[in-house]
Amino acid sequence: MEELKRTIKEKGKIVGTEIIKVDSFLNHQVDVELMDKIGIEFANKFRDKNITKVITIESSGIAPATMTAFHLKVPLLILKKSTSRILNDNTLQTKVHSFTKNIDYELTVSKEYIKEDDRILFIDDFLANGAAALGAKQLIDMKKAELIGIGIVIEKSFQDGRKKLEDGGLDVYSLARISKIENGEICFKD
Amino acid sequence: MEELKRTIKEKGKIVGTEIIKVDSFLNHQVDVELMDKIGIEFANKFRDKNITKVITIESSGIAPATMTAFHLKVPLLILKKSTSRILNDNTLQTKVHSFTKNIDYELTVSKEYIKEDDRILFIDDFLANGAAALGAKQLIDMKKAELIGIGIVIEKSFQDGRKKLEDGGLDVYSLARISKIENGEICFKD
Repeated sequence: MEELKRTIKEKGKIVGTEIIKVDSFLNHQVDVELMDKIGIEFANKFRDKNITKVITIESSGIAPATMTAFHLKVPLLILKKSTSRILNDNTLQTKVHSFTKNIDYELTVSKEYIKEDDRILFIDDFLANGAAALGAKQLIDMKKAELIGIGIVIEKSFQDGRKKLEDGGLDVYSLARISKIENGEICFKD
Repeated sequence: MEELKRTIKEKGKIVGTEIIKVDSFLNHQVDVELMDKIGIEFANKFRDKNITKVITIESSGIAPATMTAFHLKVPLLILKKSTSRILNDNTLQTKVHSFTKNIDYELTVSKEYIKEDDRILFIDDFLANGAAALGAKQLIDMKKAELIGIGIVIEKSFQDGRKKLEDGGLDVYSLARISKIENGEICFKD
């Protein structure tokens, strides 16, 4: 998505060789007109897949996922990050390790909002090592629903997230794929 | 907003006399078409106020705030909840006490995303005792920007949040005002 790549080049802040901060338009301040275009792009890509629900993880994925769900005319489901294990019959959890923050959290969902016949599109702001997406897949699998596709705003293609997801048979669609960050410059795949 | 009140009556789950769970359309699963209508309603209410930025707090306010910012054609700024004090020159913080969860958190923003000439609309899913909105106002005040209005999806009018905000001279616009929860029924003001 050319406008997104241009915005990343113009406004992204490079930290070292692996981190790019997009606080000015995606993660903290949010360019909602760009989010709308991102939502249209994901919706067009997955429109013929009979998606019944968009899922994301709080909180940076919510804005692009809201727009995607709006353009697909399906509900959005926001998975929660809990710091502790919740023991009740209504909740499903799976442990996820965040490599960025080097912490574990329990990815959490109320059972009733994933149904066995759901066809789910997972949307997130970043794909790095794939831990968040794989955690979401585990929750979806617990309810025997189907994860139809994964829509990523920014993929760090120099990490192994895409490979892990594709090895699991998943369809990954990323709007911007960063192949490397070198000499203070962001390089995209393709 | 009649459609919202109807949805709260139909889908809200009452817990005791003070808590209403709206997990099925606002806080966990999100009805994005309703969020769009909510965004239009807030945008229409504040359209002539020259709003330059919509602010919300992660994570339940993000979906309605995204739609509000979209319809006002201004950026969205998402305030973060940190568990600890961050010591650096780029960040502003203020302590907020969450009565719902009985915890303190540091409401956090990067200095650069609030400007002195910003005219800000604060959007949140719930208003109870007003602690979150007052915390946001403190951050806005630190940068000498102006908090023009507060848009709330669901107001618990039996708590004192509105009074505190109005005593501070703030313009509060709530789409559904719950006056009481009695005998398992939700009553609205007006």
